[in-house]
Amino acid sequence: MNRWDNFLAPYRQAVEELKTKLKGLREQYELSSKHTPIEFVTGRVKPVSSIIEKAKRKQIPLDQIEEDMLDIAGIRIVCQFVSDIDTVVHMLSEREDFAIVEERDYVKEKKESGYRSYHLVIEYPVHTIEGMKDVRAEVQIRTLAMNFWATIEHSLNYKYSGEIPVDIQRRLERAAEAAFNLDEEMSKIKGEVREAQEIITKKREENKPDN
Amino acid sequence: MNRWDNFLAPYRQAVEELKTKLKGLREQYELSSKHTPIEFVTGRVKPVSSIIEKAKRKQIPLDQIEEDMLDIAGIRIVCQFVSDIDTVVHMLSEREDFAIVEERDYVKEKKESGYRSYHLVIEYPVHTIEGMKDVRAEVQIRTLAMNFWATIEHSLNYKYSGEIPVDIQRRLERAAEAAFNLDEEMSKIKGEVREAQEIITKKREENKPDN
Amino acid sequence: MNRWDNFLAPYRQAVEELKTKLKGLREQYELSSKHTPIEFVTGRVKPVSSIIEKAKRKQIPLDQIEEDMLDIAGIRIVCQFVSDIDTVVHMLSEREDFAIVEERDYVKEKKESGYRSYHLVIEYPVHTIEGMKDVRAEVQIRTLAMNFWATIEHSLNYKYSGEIPVDIQRRLERAAEAAFNLDEEMSKIKGEVREAQEIITKKREENKPDN
Amino acid sequence: MNRWDNFLAPYRQAVEELKTKLKGLREQYELSSKHTPIEFVTGRVKPVSSIIEKAKRKQIPLDQIEEDMLDIAGIRIVCQFVSDIDTVVHMLSEREDFAIVEERDYVKEKKESGYRSYHLVIEYPVHTIEGMKDVRAEVQIRTLAMNFWATIEHSLNYKYSGEIPVDIQRRLERAAEAAFNLDEEMSKIKGEVREAQEIITKKREENKPDN
Repeated sequence: MNRWDNFLAPYRQAVEELKTKLKGLREQYELSSKHTPIEFVTGRVKPVSSIIEKAKRKQIPLDQIEEDMLDIAGIRIVCQFVSDIDTVVHMLSEREDFAIVEERDYVKEKKESGYRSYHLVIEYPVHTIEGMKDVRAEVQIRTLAMNFWATIEHSLNYKYSGEIPVDIQRRLERAAEAAFNLDEEMSKIKGEVREAQEIITKKREENKPDN
Repeated sequence: MNRWDNFLAPYRQAVEELKTKLKGLREQYELSSKHTPIEFVTGRVKPVSSIIEKAKRKQIPLDQIEEDMLDIAGIRIVCQFVSDIDTVVHMLSEREDFAIVEERDYVKEKKESGYRSYHLVIEYPVHTIEGMKDVRAEVQIRTLAMNFWATIEHSLNYKYSGEIPVDIQRRLERAAEAAFNLDEEMSKIKGEVREAQEIITKKREENKPDN
Repeated sequence: MNRWDNFLAPYRQAVEELKTKLKGLREQYELSSKHTPIEFVTGRVKPVSSIIEKAKRKQIPLDQIEEDMLDIAGIRIVCQFVSDIDTVVHMLSEREDFAIVEERDYVKEKKESGYRSYHLVIEYPVHTIEGMKDVRAEVQIRTLAMNFWATIEHSLNYKYSGEIPVDIQRRLERAAEAAFNLDEEMSKIKGEVREAQEIITKKREENKPDN
Repeated sequence: MNRWDNFLAPYRQAVEELKTKLKGLREQYELSSKHTPIEFVTGRVKPVSSIIEKAKRKQIPLDQIEEDMLDIAGIRIVCQFVSDIDTVVHMLSEREDFAIVEERDYVKEKKESGYRSYHLVIEYPVHTIEGMKDVRAEVQIRTLAMNFWATIEHSLNYKYSGEIPVDIQRRLERAAEAAFNLDEEMSKIKGEVREAQEIITKKREENKPDN
């Protein structure tokens, strides 16, 4: 096992376990006749090349990244409605299998760039073949529209090393507004949709053939 | 094996195989330094209760559903940009492992409801334990914004059995416009984003540590 | 959500999480250059029909099965060598994410039928959409040969409702002996094989092309 | 995409598709009330380091490995009974989604080392993002006991670079005999077990609760 594989093993394990846990919640919501606040869950371990690059950029010595780089393990929870974000944050804060050590609300206070998302940093205990280890992971919670826009912005930011030209910046802002509007329109129709979804799952249960 | 399990087994198999094939394409794009036209792929077999209900509604006798119900197996391919849809359709039409038997372009000509998507019906040969069988499957190709809206509309349509009240109809239209706008804004920024994504994947390959 | 789905949801979740955790250990062993004591891991929730039948047979009232039926959630860990079983049991007893509440060693003291396996009952905390819940699960640890035989015996036992005819009983005993012999021969070659496996994984790491 | 990733992409895709197809057959057998000849299916693409090493050993120039190395993509089908092997071979030879280009029966004629397995080389068409490509894959079909022994022998062979010392050779032979005996004893009880398994799955279907 080389150094990086060794270093990243607990992060990989944490991501796998957290995905299993959070996807399980989604399935339970689907089986119940309740609106699910979780549309989908993804997870990833930061590629080694990105870790190295970020360490350089942020001037973090490599023996400090465990402490100072908080997004080596990343979990993303994507929601249908803006109000689902609060539901998810509340649900996560009640859990006893990890501790929340940091919390940033970029939904209420979006970043200058237009970026919106709710961020948590958690400390999650993992059992590895070398014993137990607390692993830090960043959990991002956002709507589909926020997620869409953030993906785009991430790419452009990367291309221009954080210095996006003014005209592209402007186009990016208009896209952010369009995403925000979509979230707004969706919110207005939210109550209706939730009710509809509950009716669908109830009907499905009642109509289940007996085989 | 009960009647329904027996009837649905080849459909389940077709959905699994098509998901493996299409997700494989996405992974190949990610490994290459090309923009991937496939954001994600999902698939499902229609629940028995929905098959029965649709058969009643459309007055299809149960012994005719294999011929007349074309969406028992369903695959959805979701794209980042509107122009990716054409790329995907072209790629699917070149394949030799299934035949396209129907094609409907609700992107150029959206449905009255506001629904936009590109639909294909394919005929896909499956090997089951009882021999080979041609299975029909519906493939829906759409952007993230189209997908988002369609999910909402589907729920409401279901709730009101196709007769959505006028005020909700109007809110739904505004949401459709917001989704359309997001797609438009994204299109304007498309070239930039594609180029950025290609740079990212190239960098990642170059920077791969040697271990 | 019907009664059974509701009752079984936490068991399903526990099985998924335990599989992710234990398969993760196996992968960590594979990445390291150590012999892995875990050949493979499977898990299942007992089918409702089997729960009902067992409840009848053992005269457990349905409102008592949560307390009295300990194998509704089942995990099986299969090992290459008999001595791996102890390694796995030790590793599980060190974990802090569940408690071992019962322990039965049918390896040292095989059952009259010839059955060999190490059984643990654990109490595992699951977070569901309705809050936290302690779930009991049975963990069976056995070699490939023990597993092979046990599968066969289970089928025959079921067929004859526990009263296997004498001639088949005898054939089953000879199969148990053959399985036992295989385990014995494997034990004699164990040290050699372990060493060889460690060499292989080390070589693989060293020879990894730099891309 | 580096050279090796590029070269191996169609092999990876072939392995994924073949696993989906063959695991699907197993699931269909399980749903039916028939004995399944497939116990489990695994697949792997040969690690780059092993490809390079084998090319050196067998003196295959690197630009010839596509033609001359037939096990870059590998599928393994493991069976409960020796007679299941023929059932699987027959089933594969009937399929129209690949062609069998080579066939070796090391079950009837075991290798000098004691190795037993049925080998097929198939040619499987894969659609990649660069078009269609015929990929060769080796399919190994064997019982659990054959598989167990082969794993061990592979490790030792590797350790001693094909020249296993006489005393270890002898222990390996005794293990091969023990594995062969287990297969023999299992064959004698086969009819009984198959019948029992069919009874179990039938019962399970009948007893399914109506929900």
